[in-house]
Amino acid sequence: MKHVDINCDMGESFGAYRLGNDEEILSYISSANIACGFHAGDPATMRKTVRMALEKGVAIGAHPGLPDLVGFGRRNMDIDPQEAYDIVVYQVGALQAFVKAEGGSMQHVKPHGALYNMAATRPALAEAIAEAIYKVNPSLILYGLAGSELTRAGARIGLRTAHEVFADRTYQEDGTLTPRSQPDAMITEQSQSLAQVIRMVTEGRVLSLQGVDVPIQADTVCIHGDGAHALEFARSIHAAFEGAGIVPRSFI
Amino acid sequence: MKHVDINCDMGESFGAYRLGNDEEILSYISSANIACGFHAGDPATMRKTVRMALEKGVAIGAHPGLPDLVGFGRRNMDIDPQEAYDIVVYQVGALQAFVKAEGGSMQHVKPHGALYNMAATRPALAEAIAEAIYKVNPSLILYGLAGSELTRAGARIGLRTAHEVFADRTYQEDGTLTPRSQPDAMITEQSQSLAQVIRMVTEGRVLSLQGVDVPIQADTVCIHGDGAHALEFARSIHAAFEGAGIVPRSFI
Amino acid sequence: MKHVDINCDMGESFGAYRLGNDEEILSYISSANIACGFHAGDPATMRKTVRMALEKGVAIGAHPGLPDLVGFGRRNMDIDPQEAYDIVVYQVGALQAFVKAEGGSMQHVKPHGALYNMAATRPALAEAIAEAIYKVNPSLILYGLAGSELTRAGARIGLRTAHEVFADRTYQEDGTLTPRSQPDAMITEQSQSLAQVIRMVTEGRVLSLQGVDVPIQADTVCIHGDGAHALEFARSIHAAFEGAGIVPRSFI
Amino acid sequence: MKHVDINCDMGESFGAYRLGNDEEILSYISSANIACGFHAGDPATMRKTVRMALEKGVAIGAHPGLPDLVGFGRRNMDIDPQEAYDIVVYQVGALQAFVKAEGGSMQHVKPHGALYNMAATRPALAEAIAEAIYKVNPSLILYGLAGSELTRAGARIGLRTAHEVFADRTYQEDGTLTPRSQPDAMITEQSQSLAQVIRMVTEGRVLSLQGVDVPIQADTVCIHGDGAHALEFARSIHAAFEGAGIVPRSFI
Repeated sequence: MKHVDINCDMGESFGAYRLGNDEEILSYISSANIACGFHAGDPATMRKTVRMALEKGVAIGAHPGLPDLVGFGRRNMDIDPQEAYDIVVYQVGALQAFVKAEGGSMQHVKPHGALYNMAATRPALAEAIAEAIYKVNPSLILYGLAGSELTRAGARIGLRTAHEVFADRTYQEDGTLTPRSQPDAMITEQSQSLAQVIRMVTEGRVLSLQGVDVPIQADTVCIHGDGAHALEFARSIHAAFEGAGIVPRSFI
Repeated sequence: MKHVDINCDMGESFGAYRLGNDEEILSYISSANIACGFHAGDPATMRKTVRMALEKGVAIGAHPGLPDLVGFGRRNMDIDPQEAYDIVVYQVGALQAFVKAEGGSMQHVKPHGALYNMAATRPALAEAIAEAIYKVNPSLILYGLAGSELTRAGARIGLRTAHEVFADRTYQEDGTLTPRSQPDAMITEQSQSLAQVIRMVTEGRVLSLQGVDVPIQADTVCIHGDGAHALEFARSIHAAFEGAGIVPRSFI
Repeated sequence: MKHVDINCDMGESFGAYRLGNDEEILSYISSANIACGFHAGDPATMRKTVRMALEKGVAIGAHPGLPDLVGFGRRNMDIDPQEAYDIVVYQVGALQAFVKAEGGSMQHVKPHGALYNMAATRPALAEAIAEAIYKVNPSLILYGLAGSELTRAGARIGLRTAHEVFADRTYQEDGTLTPRSQPDAMITEQSQSLAQVIRMVTEGRVLSLQGVDVPIQADTVCIHGDGAHALEFARSIHAAFEGAGIVPRSFI
Repeated sequence: MKHVDINCDMGESFGAYRLGNDEEILSYISSANIACGFHAGDPATMRKTVRMALEKGVAIGAHPGLPDLVGFGRRNMDIDPQEAYDIVVYQVGALQAFVKAEGGSMQHVKPHGALYNMAATRPALAEAIAEAIYKVNPSLILYGLAGSELTRAGARIGLRTAHEVFADRTYQEDGTLTPRSQPDAMITEQSQSLAQVIRMVTEGRVLSLQGVDVPIQADTVCIHGDGAHALEFARSIHAAFEGAGIVPRSFI
């Protein structure tokens, strides 16, 4: 029997705005990345989402993003490492307080969107993020793109790290994700995406677009929480994992 | 020899904007209330201010405010108790993370501006704020207007509280502050303001505007950190306390 | 044949967040109140909503709100008249630019939520809002609660005004709305709500909760754009008006 | 006698925060670029600054920036051309409303900070900004870096443009500014900076860092409004222009 973590972004509602199927999705994941108010989320949403995750026994992580609510944290911003450090300390602290208030404890931190992507390739930014997490709570696990600068920086500073893989993205022969700007970046065929993720988890390998098999560390699998098919995909991956003898499990 | 805490709002700069004489004022106070990004302050300012306070040996508190940056948290907003709870948890957590990252520990929480004022008279709001603080960290001290609903709520929930008095404000015979809307709300004569605050600290009494002496608990004295005369007043109160045998001291 | 305006709040999406059924609702209304970015809406949403309204031949109004995105502009804030003036000038100007850019012209301004409610009863606030609109464009029509301080202030300053009535709210014998805090503030029975609004439009009278018939000026009827039954109610009121010989028509 | 426009960024205060010496600087400039609330400024500041500029007979322009208050609009953000278009329409409209309300008319638009810099080199972004301005008001003048993509885009779409030069920046042999990341990007010697700007205005040439003389169109000179020496430099450039027979004059 093999274990793997399934994580999903959560708590991305804001004020009067609802986003995602958090309550339903929670039944299919082991770890929840909860938005912290910069790219999405607000204090009330954080409290409710933390409570729901605790009730469902799902591990909780902070999901800090760029200060860009209107852009949902998806637009790259030229923040310097010090600014990255500061916004991560702030957001991790804010979420940690809700987790503490609800009687739980926090498992991990996964940067969001453009912050995640920039940290995957920029060592100084990655290091600043890792340092921020370490200084707030050295027992937190840093989630980052498998084989990226972010997981490297986390390991270097002494954090436990989780290498993240994506079911619905194609990979390059150097192990990186195919950029979304390229036409074949996404896997649209669900069976193909399930097969890829099962192979990553069980064999630690993925077939790159170049046709070369590459090694990949798959500690945690990301699924999406919003969109029309989010819930359906969550169920499918859950079922496929069951069929392959893979048991979803968080790190705590 | 008598002790009293002197506190001052700090860390109210934002981005490119500078506000207050934090570095100088720190020499004259025992406790710093640090803004948490809602009414003022930002992650970078929070980090720098926490560091400065720790270097000067000044105790640190969170200074959560209403989500009203353009109004500096001074405009009453009809938030309900649950919203007050949520924004206090969030902001206290954010500041606590910076204190932790800098190797310190947090002493207290003092709500800011309109949140402070509303909590002084509205029991449900006061209770929500006290509960938020208690749940994040029950060892935090709640600063509130002396004899107000806020200190009452703090005591009821099991928090240590600090009753705050103002040197430059006049008092009513029921022990409340004269509302700012009234012409004689402020004491503009410095000698009078120093005499009032020394008497509050040493005798626990204040002469109300109605000419009646009223009892008042003076655990902590608030001084202002911005404005032309802030630094001068900080020095004066410090000197006056010395002359009266009062030693400024935080609660930790 | 009788005419009446039907208006609806629109353009309340924000960034990644969708709200309301704008496109469908536009088929059933004559005037659209478009959010301006303070309580809801963003520049992209404003552009798209303006364009949609122009394509459907629906008259356009600005829908300025309090600077409270997380509270959706529904929480009273103690802004002074000068602040109300400033935020209305700003938001009306911003929307007007999109209308101009799309080749249209603006018909009206309707304050949103708490700003609308506060302006209905506070003369100084109402006057400041009316003055803001008048100074930006004196040909704009001010929408306000029927018989309120806001419509009064508009008329006094020289603006054309539209008295607004609500199908789903009950009225008091002084012609004001029953406050939402009271249990019988809302009319939940659709047939009753349609009957009330038709009578207001055709007879200029409404039966108050006290059982007394009161005169009311019904220039424009507000319908809601979000919620499960928004579209269904829009269709019903449209059909009911048709049956009663009432033709929806904007003021231009 | 030669004329040139002197422009300065203004209205960058925000809420309780004061920035710049607007009132004094207004005596030395012919055109004011007024912040519109995204990178700096707020509705009250916009109103006051517009009024001051009108009283001093200084021409008014909108100074739209990126939605990044904490970063003062100085951090590049990956906004796409459509987003640039939208935020420019919004901000130009908001300022235009204040100008209209105060009885004036708007002369120009100058993008701020990172938006200005990105538009100087990215044709699609430049075109989107130019189109936004043109659609809101085709008689507005577009201020852009001399010889940049922004002025080119403005001219192409049919806007009048003003080529802007900097007194305190060095130039490359291709006529571009030396990037601030390079050590010799700034001219710190005031006499040298005054000599450079006078030569740019009177001869249309500037000596590049490479030692080659390059042609440059100097329609408007930018001076800075904040910082310790802002006012002093404003006076110096004013005096130096007078000595060189150059008369500051806006374009209207």
